[in-house]
Formats: sequence, structure tokens, C-alpha cells
Amino acid sequence: MGRSLASPESVGALAARIGAEIRGDANTQIVSVASLTGASIGELSFFSDKKFASVLASTNASAVIAPAIAKLPERCVHLVHANPHQAFATLLAQLFPETADFNGATLSSEVLAKMGLNRVFIHNSSTVGAKSCIGEGTVIHAGVRIGNNVRIGADCVLYPNVVVRDGVVIGDRCIFQPGAVIGSDGFGFQPTASGWMKVPQVGTVIIGNDVEIGANTSIDRGAIEDTVIGDGVKIDNLVQIAHNVRIGEHTAIAGCAGVAGSAIIGKRCMIGGAARIIGHLEIADDVIVSGGTLVADSIREKGRYTGVFPTTSHRDWMRLAAGLRRSVRAARNTNQDGKDETVGTE
Amino acid sequence: MGRSLASPESVGALAARIGAEIRGDANTQIVSVASLTGASIGELSFFSDKKFASVLASTNASAVIAPAIAKLPERCVHLVHANPHQAFATLLAQLFPETADFNGATLSSEVLAKMGLNRVFIHNSSTVGAKSCIGEGTVIHAGVRIGNNVRIGADCVLYPNVVVRDGVVIGDRCIFQPGAVIGSDGFGFQPTASGWMKVPQVGTVIIGNDVEIGANTSIDRGAIEDTVIGDGVKIDNLVQIAHNVRIGEHTAIAGCAGVAGSAIIGKRCMIGGAARIIGHLEIADDVIVSGGTLVADSIREKGRYTGVFPTTSHRDWMRLAAGLRRSVRAARNTNQDGKDETVGTE
Amino acid sequence: MGRSLASPESVGALAARIGAEIRGDANTQIVSVASLTGASIGELSFFSDKKFASVLASTNASAVIAPAIAKLPERCVHLVHANPHQAFATLLAQLFPETADFNGATLSSEVLAKMGLNRVFIHNSSTVGAKSCIGEGTVIHAGVRIGNNVRIGADCVLYPNVVVRDGVVIGDRCIFQPGAVIGSDGFGFQPTASGWMKVPQVGTVIIGNDVEIGANTSIDRGAIEDTVIGDGVKIDNLVQIAHNVRIGEHTAIAGCAGVAGSAIIGKRCMIGGAARIIGHLEIADDVIVSGGTLVADSIREKGRYTGVFPTTSHRDWMRLAAGLRRSVRAARNTNQDGKDETVGTE
Repeated sequence: MGRSLASPESVGALAARIGAEIRGDANTQIVSVASLTGASIGELSFFSDKKFASVLASTNASAVIAPAIAKLPERCVHLVHANPHQAFATLLAQLFPETADFNGATLSSEVLAKMGLNRVFIHNSSTVGAKSCIGEGTVIHAGVRIGNNVRIGADCVLYPNVVVRDGVVIGDRCIFQPGAVIGSDGFGFQPTASGWMKVPQVGTVIIGNDVEIGANTSIDRGAIEDTVIGDGVKIDNLVQIAHNVRIGEHTAIAGCAGVAGSAIIGKRCMIGGAARIIGHLEIADDVIVSGGTLVADSIREKGRYTGVFPTTSHRDWMRLAAGLRRSVRAARNTNQDGKDETVGTE
Repeated sequence: MGRSLASPESVGALAARIGAEIRGDANTQIVSVASLTGASIGELSFFSDKKFASVLASTNASAVIAPAIAKLPERCVHLVHANPHQAFATLLAQLFPETADFNGATLSSEVLAKMGLNRVFIHNSSTVGAKSCIGEGTVIHAGVRIGNNVRIGADCVLYPNVVVRDGVVIGDRCIFQPGAVIGSDGFGFQPTASGWMKVPQVGTVIIGNDVEIGANTSIDRGAIEDTVIGDGVKIDNLVQIAHNVRIGEHTAIAGCAGVAGSAIIGKRCMIGGAARIIGHLEIADDVIVSGGTLVADSIREKGRYTGVFPTTSHRDWMRLAAGLRRSVRAARNTNQDGKDETVGTE
Repeated sequence: MGRSLASPESVGALAARIGAEIRGDANTQIVSVASLTGASIGELSFFSDKKFASVLASTNASAVIAPAIAKLPERCVHLVHANPHQAFATLLAQLFPETADFNGATLSSEVLAKMGLNRVFIHNSSTVGAKSCIGEGTVIHAGVRIGNNVRIGADCVLYPNVVVRDGVVIGDRCIFQPGAVIGSDGFGFQPTASGWMKVPQVGTVIIGNDVEIGANTSIDRGAIEDTVIGDGVKIDNLVQIAHNVRIGEHTAIAGCAGVAGSAIIGKRCMIGGAARIIGHLEIADDVIVSGGTLVADSIREKGRYTGVFPTTSHRDWMRLAAGLRRSVRAARNTNQDGKDETVGTE
């Protein structure tokens, strides 16, 4: 379920856009782009990280951009490129150009009234982009900015200065506190010889029913697939939800927490204030993460998890920290290797 | 000093709204709602946590929603309910419905000029709700959103896109950096069989004189009583102040810090950047909390407090962390209990 | 390269503003103010911290506010004041008064069109202050607030509700996600007997080319000199960049990170999510700081640095923390001094 092209293109046409050699049928039709793990028939993806070799071997994608040496399933067309992620980013920028479609297309409360949406309350300082629709009973306070092609359900409240960017989908009875940003670009950049190259973020954000989002919290749109916030999720103020994150139903996340890209959080979890969830990991259902804890590895079993340095007087802390460092110096002398003691973080 | 009802109601009428049985005089008049610790004569509160049993025993509230087995003072009317917090939340939602009163009631700079407030500067892109008043010499930059019934003192500066929600009270000579949000809902939810139930946040925010609030900082309104920021307090960017927090005069809080619900911070404290204060605790006057420290217990004496893991090369850190974990495995074998070693966090 | 005065003033006139005695030539002309380390001929600075005594001894400043006992170079005029920082702040407030110059001077998209800037797209809900200029091809979405004297280059995108305060300079091809704040006041206060005195923040923010700034991120203006973000820097959501920070080219900073005042970060660094960089330190080029790590000392060599408490089950964490505390109690008995074990944090 990646992002659909405006109209289908042949693998031949796509390969020409990025200067890739084709191994397979150049007439294969591509209807959308997707990540390798999510790709299915009719979709184009890319392969650039060896740890996904087994995913590549069994992918259903119809075409994959990959280095010459990569081994693809036989039915999958191989677009040979030395730098697949960069080539994919280039392609996304061409296929999904940013548009600034706000001249003349903005809905006002008068226009909405003409459409019969009498129970939609939109403050006259707020703006709604083209082709967006808003459900009955929803209240949009002052200074709210809603982009194009947004869908917002019934009986929601958007407090002042909330921003909802293009293409975001929101369920019923959701509440957005002031300054919340939904659908900002994910933090996706590809290193090149001349610096970071932006990877267009072509996914969106899907928010279920009965969700509350706190003040000045930001939820990034997905890189290719979508960022998904389940029904009944409650997120407090100043929380960062990165691209491709999926949060299960009825999970609550307290203020100042951060969830890095592609993390998957289960149902009914409670994430404490200022907790940090590293990217590309999974947290089971019914997990409690204590405030201030940094979760660097997947958590497979429900229960409470904690990791914060105990707070003491500054003088005692100096002793604690110095003691820890002395142990390292001692360990360094007896164990020059240390490889067996790895603990992940990022 | 809880929140006043629009007009007094009898205990009988209130009990009918939530299906509670009455033990005591159903004609007792209620004029406001309050938390159990703050309640006085004429007020209604609720009791749902055993640790407040002694508070209940000596409460001055005129009526309390409580389970059948709870022991109330004799003069206090008992509204019997199996789930007092949920019943109280239901009552709040009925007594203090959210209104979207912005059709036709918004003040413009022209209206203010007619009122004789010539020294109030309001950018014409900003909006001020009904029944709000703004003191002489105050400057309101572009895109500022001020709700209804807000009071702002003299000689304040509100930079662009600041949001001040309904009912907030602000003193003189305050400065609000861009994107600051004052009066967002506190993060209050009650677990039910079908998920989290929102507890209406009916308190407000009271800000003293000479306060400065940083860019994109958020200060939540109180759940029942108010969030209070004392005179001369300085708060940096991206700081989260949760509901019911009280901050003493001339305390300074650096960027990215977070203060959880109902924490009380003394006067002249200095809270370092990214420090975290857990909820429902107290910090004495003249306390310094080092940057990055998580304060999980009350601090009763002035002084400096610290708790951060010492930073080293990643290789050395792996040794430190592995060493700590080894100690735990060793301790686990000799001490199966561990109960005497508790250290609080939340 | 401090901030220029509206017109040059003599040392005599400046000294009169703050009641300082003059040692040297009262007719010396001052054209700008600067920090002691950055000051050159024609500039006025102040000296209040003994650790800068050697900087004072070799300063090129033409005049310095300093206590009577301070030793200035012979050619440097001495403005004698018991409280130099407070006197300097008073002077800044007089020399650079905050103005609310938005009546009638705001550019609209119509005005810009008349200026021939047909390829500048400005949503009609956005506002641009006086004397600001915006490059060809730049897109300004809804609700964006641009102050006076701002310069924005070509082909930038400013998403909804971004705020850019007075005097900020931005290069070409920059992208600002929604709610980002550029040029908010730095957190600068001087303690006085009656509380904190605001130190006017008279520097600005200089942003290079190809920079991306995340949603609800804030970048403070410099206190005297400027905050500088190098070419190709990428900053994620909810990041705090304090006053006077300098970030080298192509450095990337992940979400929820914070960089305190006057920190200098090298080129091509990668700062992990929720990492914290303490103020007044330097980080070399090509340094990687792991997520959640607090950097309290300068890092002189490239490499990866980490410091986070390992996360475990809550029960095991209680054992770890209690064990650490026991070590301190033991250490306290054998080592009453501890002075040799200091580890900095702030």
C-alpha cells in the first residue's frame, strides 16, 4: 500500500528517468511505489541495505531498483543502479512534485455554508485547501491551516493555529490542541558527495477515531507508506512522532516523548513523559515505559521498563559518575575486546 | 478555589445527572467544583484514590462523589458512585460544555480603537475573542490567537502566532515568544472498558507579572484548579508545563525541560535544559537541577541536584552499560526480593 | 561583528546613559556593540567574568564597561561600573528599542506582484513586514509571519504558520516545516536584587543555503553576535537551538535534540534524537552523538559518543540504581573529599 502514481508508467519509462539499465520486461506497468517490505504486484521499490536481502528474495514487487550484484526473484524486473536509494529519491521528486496550489482554491466558511455544511464551524481567520472535506459538527478555531485533499471526520475540534498538511486523513471525534502539526515531512535524507539529498516524503498520516493530540506536538507524514495513529490514542504536548511510526489503539504518550522513524508501538501502551523510542523497533501491547527512559531495543513482553540515572546531590553524582568511569578504565585493561558486551543504542 | 458553576445547583440535581445515590441532604446547594485537597464549603469534589483517605476525613467540601464504603465527615453529603472519577468527568462535561463562540464576537483593532484603547497595538491578522480585555501598551503581533474571557495586562508583548486559550489571566510586562501556547487542555484521561475517557479540563492558567515564555513552549490549563506561574518566572523554548503545576516567583527553566502534572516548584529555582520534573512532587526554594536530570522524588532542601549518565566514547559506554547489567544479574542471584531497594520514577 | 548603532555615539554620551565614570577619551566614537571575544575597533563591549581577563587584556574594543579594578589595554576607554552586564543590558534596551512597526507597512501578495515578483507565491493569509525581501520562486504557505528587514533567498518553501522574526537572513533552497520559529529571543537574563533583568537580544539568525528546519523547531537570535546555521544543515522537529550557537555545514540534528547557548558544532556531525549539547563548548567535525546522550564537555576528536542509562525491566532498574547509590555511600565513608573526581555538567 504505497503511494499511487498519477497515471501508470512502464518500467522502461521509469528507468529512463534515472538512467538505470533494465534486466527483465521493460513493458511491465507500475502503478505505485512502495517500501521493499510493503511492496506488492504492480509496485516499484528499491534495495540498498544488505540486511533486507531475505526480504528482497521473496518480494512481490514487480520491479526493484538495486545494485548489479543483487539477487531478485525471477519475475521481478531489475533496474540496475549503483545508488538505489538516491535513484529512488530522484524518481519520487519527479513523480510527486511539491505544488503550491493555493491561489483561488481556498474554501471559506461562506463556501462551506453554500455546500450545506451548516454545522461545520470555521473561524474566518482559518484556511482550508482545495478538495478537502470536513465532517459535520467539527469546529475549526482561529488560524488553523488545512492543506489540500485533507479529510477530517465529524465532531472534531481543531484549536487555534493547528496545521494539517496535504493529504492527511483524520477520523471522528478527534481533538487537536493549539499549534499541533500533522503531516510535516519526515526527516529523510540520503548522503551524497555534495551533502544531504532530500528524500521526498510521499506518504501521509492516517489518524483514527477519538484521538487527542497535544499542543505543539508534531506528527510526520510517512516516507512512502503512511504514519498511522490508531483509534483512541492520546498524545500529550511537545511529542515528536517520526515518519512511518505506527501506534496501536488506546496507547497514551506523555509530554516531551519522542518516537523515531518506523517504530511500531503496540496497543494500550503507556509511554512516560520524555521517554525516547529509537527507530525501527517494536514494542509489544500493554508495555509501560517509565518517564525519561530511552528504549533502544524491541520490547517483546508486556511489563514496565525503565532506564534513568538516579538523581542525587550534585556532589554525590560526581562520585557515582567517576566510579563508573573508573570501572571502565579497569575493564579496559583486562578486556581489550569488549565485543561481547554490546548494548544497542542509536 | 475550584471552578464556579454557571448557577448553583442542588446536590439532588447533580446526583441525578450521574445516577448517584444520595446519603445526606439533597437540598444542599453547590456553587463550584474542586479537587479534594482544595475543596471548601459549597463545593463538590470526588474521592477515588485510597491515599487521600485522610484528606477525605477532614474535607470541608459540602458534597463528595465516593464509593459506598468510603467514610465521609458527617456534614458532607455522600454521592455514592462505583466510579467516582468517571462520574465527576461526566459531570464536568455537562456543567462546562466546550463552546465555539467565535461567530461575530471577534474584536478587531478597529473595535479596540473605538473602545479608547489607542495604545494597544494589534496586528490586523490577529484575533481576540469575546469579553477579552487587553491592557494599555500591550503589543500583539501577527497571527496571535486570543480566546474568550482572556485578561492580559499592560505593556506585554505577544510575538507572532502565540495562542492564548479561553479564560487565561496574564499580568503586566509579560513577553511571549512566537508559537507559545497558553491554556491548552491538560492531559487528563480516565480509563474505561472502551478506552480513555477525556476528563474536561475546567481550570485555567494564571500568569503573574514580568513573566517571559519561550518559543513553542506550552502551558496547560488546570484540571479543576489553575496552573499558576509566579511573578518574574522565565521559561525558555520548547518547555512543557503540565496541568496544575505551580511555579514560584523568579524561577528560571531552560529549554526542552518538562514539568509533569501537579508538581510544585519553589521560588528562585534554576531548572536546567531538558531536565524533567515528575508529577505530584515538591521542589524547595533555591534548588538547582542540572540539565538533563530527571527528578523523581521531592527535593526538600536547597542545593544542586544531578542525575545523568556520564558520556564517553561509544565503545566505553558499551563497557559501562554491560558492567551495570552484570551487577544486576549477580544481585539477582543473591537477592530474590529487592523490595528494600526501591527508587521511585514514573 | 556586533550590532551597529542607528548612528555613532561618543563614549561620553553612552556613559551618561548608564551613569558610568570614564577613564580615557570621552570623545571616542562608538559605531557598534559586541561581545568581548568578538569586539574590534569602534566597538563597545563589557567585562564581568574573571575567566575572560586574558581576553580583556588583548581586546581590540575601543571601549569596555568594567569594574574599577579591571585592567584594560591602554588605548581602550574604561567605563567604570560596578555591574557591567546589567549596565550593558540597560544600554542595549535604550539603543535598540523594540518597535511594533506593523501599521500600514505590511506587504501583501498584491504589493509583491506590483514589484514584479511574480514567481513569489504568498498565501493571502500570510504577512510580510516592512523592508523585507523574498527571492524568486519562494513559496510562502498560509499563516506564515515574516517580520521586518528579513531577507529570504530563492526557491525556499515556508510551510504554514512558520514565524521568521525581524532581521533574519535565509539563503536559497531552504525548507521550513510548519510551526518552525526562527529568530525568537535568546534566553538571556541578568540576576538583580529584584529578580531577572532581560538582556535585549540584539543579534539575529543567519541561515545558509539548502537548510531544512523541522516542525515546531525554534532557533533563537544571537544575544549580540548572530546564531549561524551553515549550508546544508538539516534539523528535525522540536529541536531547540539557543542563542549564539554555530552549526557547521552538512550537520544533521534529529528530533527533540537541544543545543544550549554559544555551543559550536562542527561540520558533517550527526546529533541523535533527544541528544543534549551543553552551552559554551565545542564539538569537532564528523562527530556522532548517540540519541539521548547529554554532552557536557567539548569533544575534540571525531568518533561516536554515548551516555544513556541502559534500559531494563523496572525491577532490574531498581536494583541497578540502588547498587549505584550504595557505592556512593561506601565511597563517601572512605573519601570525604571527592574533589579529584569532578565530571562537568550544567
